[in-house]
Amino acid sequence: MEQGILHEISDIFDNVKRLKPLVHHITNYVTANDCANIVLAIGASPVMADDPEEVDEFVSMSRALVINLGTLNKRTAESMLRAGKKANELGIPVVMDPVGAGASSFRNRTAEKIIQNIKLTVIRGNMSEIKAIAGLGSSTRGVDASDQDINTSKDLWYAKNICENLSERLGCVIAITGATDIVSDGRKTVFIRNGDKMFSSITGAGCMCTSLIGTFCAVCDDYVAAASAGILALCISGEKAVEKLTRADSGSGSFRTFLIDSVFGLQGRDFIERGKIDVSL
Amino acid sequence: MEQGILHEISDIFDNVKRLKPLVHHITNYVTANDCANIVLAIGASPVMADDPEEVDEFVSMSRALVINLGTLNKRTAESMLRAGKKANELGIPVVMDPVGAGASSFRNRTAEKIIQNIKLTVIRGNMSEIKAIAGLGSSTRGVDASDQDINTSKDLWYAKNICENLSERLGCVIAITGATDIVSDGRKTVFIRNGDKMFSSITGAGCMCTSLIGTFCAVCDDYVAAASAGILALCISGEKAVEKLTRADSGSGSFRTFLIDSVFGLQGRDFIERGKIDVSL
Amino acid sequence: MEQGILHEISDIFDNVKRLKPLVHHITNYVTANDCANIVLAIGASPVMADDPEEVDEFVSMSRALVINLGTLNKRTAESMLRAGKKANELGIPVVMDPVGAGASSFRNRTAEKIIQNIKLTVIRGNMSEIKAIAGLGSSTRGVDASDQDINTSKDLWYAKNICENLSERLGCVIAITGATDIVSDGRKTVFIRNGDKMFSSITGAGCMCTSLIGTFCAVCDDYVAAASAGILALCISGEKAVEKLTRADSGSGSFRTFLIDSVFGLQGRDFIERGKIDVSL
Repeated sequence: MEQGILHEISDIFDNVKRLKPLVHHITNYVTANDCANIVLAIGASPVMADDPEEVDEFVSMSRALVINLGTLNKRTAESMLRAGKKANELGIPVVMDPVGAGASSFRNRTAEKIIQNIKLTVIRGNMSEIKAIAGLGSSTRGVDASDQDINTSKDLWYAKNICENLSERLGCVIAITGATDIVSDGRKTVFIRNGDKMFSSITGAGCMCTSLIGTFCAVCDDYVAAASAGILALCISGEKAVEKLTRADSGSGSFRTFLIDSVFGLQGRDFIERGKIDVSL
Repeated sequence: MEQGILHEISDIFDNVKRLKPLVHHITNYVTANDCANIVLAIGASPVMADDPEEVDEFVSMSRALVINLGTLNKRTAESMLRAGKKANELGIPVVMDPVGAGASSFRNRTAEKIIQNIKLTVIRGNMSEIKAIAGLGSSTRGVDASDQDINTSKDLWYAKNICENLSERLGCVIAITGATDIVSDGRKTVFIRNGDKMFSSITGAGCMCTSLIGTFCAVCDDYVAAASAGILALCISGEKAVEKLTRADSGSGSFRTFLIDSVFGLQGRDFIERGKIDVSL
Repeated sequence: MEQGILHEISDIFDNVKRLKPLVHHITNYVTANDCANIVLAIGASPVMADDPEEVDEFVSMSRALVINLGTLNKRTAESMLRAGKKANELGIPVVMDPVGAGASSFRNRTAEKIIQNIKLTVIRGNMSEIKAIAGLGSSTRGVDASDQDINTSKDLWYAKNICENLSERLGCVIAITGATDIVSDGRKTVFIRNGDKMFSSITGAGCMCTSLIGTFCAVCDDYVAAASAGILALCISGEKAVEKLTRADSGSGSFRTFLIDSVFGLQGRDFIERGKIDVSL
């Protein structure tokens, strides 16, 4: 089973390299550059535009839409809704990153409106954000997962339940990222144990993960596999980046550079050789 | 002829180092940081401000204005017009990067309005964007050149014609960047064959090129030479950056860092020793 | 005296590592990514949100507020006022970076309105910006200090007077950064002689300094020490980054990466071993 999904992911990765899909982003200005560079590094093509006047035209030429609530404002909230509706009309996958959900009522309302009006393909967040989306209250602390929400093995079954219930309720794939990552469509649930704690030392790890998920969704229609592929691509590249931090004085600046290098050099067999994945049906 | 323009470019480069011009930008949030860092790396001084209330004051103390349509919205479109008019009043060069022209009618209309109301010094874009500006239709695919528009040697004479005709019609220098770069003012046309395919693996190559063109325009009034200087500075630095990618696991992250390093270390003689340039009158 | 303040700073640094404070930013899009990464590198947690609808909720869960006027517009100016008022209500420190003060009347009016309506904890700027805040006229040249305002030893007593008078008048700590940095609350004045000229080759040095000051203010209530700690943390990390630039072809790109590495690896004893600080009462 595990090797099965890893081979499937490796094939989806080959599709990205071959099809170089255009992935439209309505995203935040803190990590937009990182997201653009990681999408290019994996071999696809990012585009960022966020004015209500034009987002539908950008969506129309794209193969996926990524909606990231990072530095949300009224104008971009409107753009997200317009872009999402256009994507739904055209059958283009829509991936949402509810950055900071639970931290403000404006964010909660906007996420809620998007969920009610747009058929989403994948929602990716940390435990705290996904709990907010699920209406389970939360203690969102800015854009990082709150301590009490981190996926220790103890919390794993609790997280699995939230993930499965929410995906069933919303009819979309839910991905909760943390120490262990969980991806579910309500029927199939995947656990990923790759990654490294260095990710918590740079900004944009979550945003980049969502952009990669959008990229994989652009080239296949098994969205549990696509979301898992995005997470694995980032996590495995992070592990390889940490292995390059050989100097005693290396830190999060070099990690960020090497992370992009590793995504750039990623190969299909990396998923198969390094992927730590469990599937439960 | 070729050595002549390379020596001229080397002299303009010395002017940048000596005069450290202030270059005002109204630009996008995806690559603003890269543009600021590359302008600093070459020895000039960037400033970014985009509110209609204040752009004219920033233009008034600058030596060049760069207008980049990357993440355009109505507010910044208004700022671009105001800033451009002030620059024209004061005789300050204005360089426009019509990012994504052809991809949306909002972008097309904004670029058109800027062209009709402002005397531009240089427009730099890829083949697809310049064709859109020329009203020749286009197949703009986000911010990258469409495949059918890439400057193969086969397309070169076609591109040369578009470049020369548009520059004559608009009365400004047109720079089309691609595998071969073409710069023309309608009388003199320059072909540049420096660069590396790694540029397509990072975001902001086009934006950084435009910012460097703006920087060179700030310190000389031969704008064909200034535009060529900006392109050469970026392309030669990119070649030097690729030469530093000696580790098997180096990629686009390291390339981006080394690119800025190379611009920082650029010397006048690099243009003369490495420049691959042809001039046709 | 000097060793006393360095030990105090080392202790505040330990507090940052232990408490990992959340630092809310309303900031510019040019350097937002750098600011987020440097706050993470030192062990704290940044959050960036700038819509008037939600900033008060983000402030409420934060331990400090950083207001940076970099790419100011009317919407974010309103957010800064709202966020500042909420921070004052809750007793959360507010650090302002008046980027480009003196360069436009919009910036001057906004800075003035913030000063009149919000009790600020620290204002950090270069000589030119602080002179503009002090109403002494200025020759602000974009975001860099004007040449005539740079802190040579000759200008030091002049700068010290401005710093002390302004801090007394506004009742907040003033930090003027340059070749020598000066921090004062009107009673105690600190001079810092760390740093490196490479800082002038990258964008965001001032913004990152302000973000670090905000981070230190979040975990102590001696704000002269906190502001000095932020400056020292950046300057000492910059010195260590320069020491890593061993390749002849290294430049500002590598410096920026190594700067973040050095902040990531910073230890309490670095302040004590490297700090060049003088205190006058």
